[in-house]
Amino acid sequence: MAQEDQKDEVTLSQFLDAVASGTATPGGGSVSALVGTLAAALVEMVANLTVGKKGLEAQEAEMKRMGEEAHSYREALGTTIAQDINAYQGVMKAFLLPKATEEDKRNRKEEIQKALKKAADPPLFTAATSLKVLKLCQKAAEKGNPNTVTDAAVGALLAQAALQGGVFNVLVNLSALEEENTVKKMRQELKRLEAEGIKTRDKILTQVKGRLKAE
Amino acid sequence: MAQEDQKDEVTLSQFLDAVASGTATPGGGSVSALVGTLAAALVEMVANLTVGKKGLEAQEAEMKRMGEEAHSYREALGTTIAQDINAYQGVMKAFLLPKATEEDKRNRKEEIQKALKKAADPPLFTAATSLKVLKLCQKAAEKGNPNTVTDAAVGALLAQAALQGGVFNVLVNLSALEEENTVKKMRQELKRLEAEGIKTRDKILTQVKGRLKAE
Repeated sequence: MAQEDQKDEVTLSQFLDAVASGTATPGGGSVSALVGTLAAALVEMVANLTVGKKGLEAQEAEMKRMGEEAHSYREALGTTIAQDINAYQGVMKAFLLPKATEEDKRNRKEEIQKALKKAADPPLFTAATSLKVLKLCQKAAEKGNPNTVTDAAVGALLAQAALQGGVFNVLVNLSALEEENTVKKMRQELKRLEAEGIKTRDKILTQVKGRLKAE
Repeated sequence: MAQEDQKDEVTLSQFLDAVASGTATPGGGSVSALVGTLAAALVEMVANLTVGKKGLEAQEAEMKRMGEEAHSYREALGTTIAQDINAYQGVMKAFLLPKATEEDKRNRKEEIQKALKKAADPPLFTAATSLKVLKLCQKAAEKGNPNTVTDAAVGALLAQAALQGGVFNVLVNLSALEEENTVKKMRQELKRLEAEGIKTRDKILTQVKGRLKAE
């Protein structure tokens, strides 16, 4: 599967088959980014089903902005699907470097460390951007067309899952990274994203459940 | 977008655009089913990256069975993507029935109730099947190739999000359904699925975080 096709030309079935296959990519990192795009698309859906609807004129401008913002996150996360694959393949390539001489070994170790650091970027982007999508889900649940409240709730579930999936895929790279300071800072940032994500999701779900008389 | 194309022929971008558009379908229900298929595909990936690997021979038979089971859930959830759209369109059609005479009104009300009851089936199936996928994620995390532990974790996040997304989409139908007994029973079943899902997901995440030294 050509890497540039991950999002634009590939069918759902082809993507699912590629995930299921016995190759390391696309894996959890790319799938997390894809789930972030699904959450963003649900926010856009709420916006599009609110703008132009009778009785919801007061929210129109805000919903339009929300939809545009969600669309930009959808685009960015869509690009991340392929970036995650490329970065992971960079790590695998570094592991295959020669290790015959001492110099080889030093060089290989350096390249592995560089590749691991680089491979943390796409899932970190997925986590941070999914948190932004999650905050839009909150707005969508509060101010969007009441008929779409479950779509906003599903968006929140997916955005949080994408965020947390991103976090796991950064962590797996950090576990082999040797730069202690970078690792420590990154772990703190991941904890912050995770905590804010869970808090925001739970707030949305409680609110939506209240409206569906499920609590 | 033709309904039979939802999964098989449609590209990722087309599906995302269809979700984002200002029509009620595909919405949160279909997206939840799709996310369940992604979780199942990740379980298959773990199985495929375990079977035939040196040092993992003891798990081979179990992983093969796990992969086959996950594949069958992926197929079933894939079919649910379109079924959810059809069922929802059945509800919208019932709402458009004539209400000129008393008989019309009685008939319309009956048809709406029938359609709502029917529309609860696909998301209920998504929730129940995603719980099965989630249990496979636990097995994948415990017995799969250690290199795929984050893929199993992402699978668990997605399966639980799909389960909960299904629950919300049943609830939104129940909120307009008048058969008290059916509603009561269904709510109990949803609560059970939800509680078991959260328990299973959290168990997996704690375990995987421990292995990634993130706790």
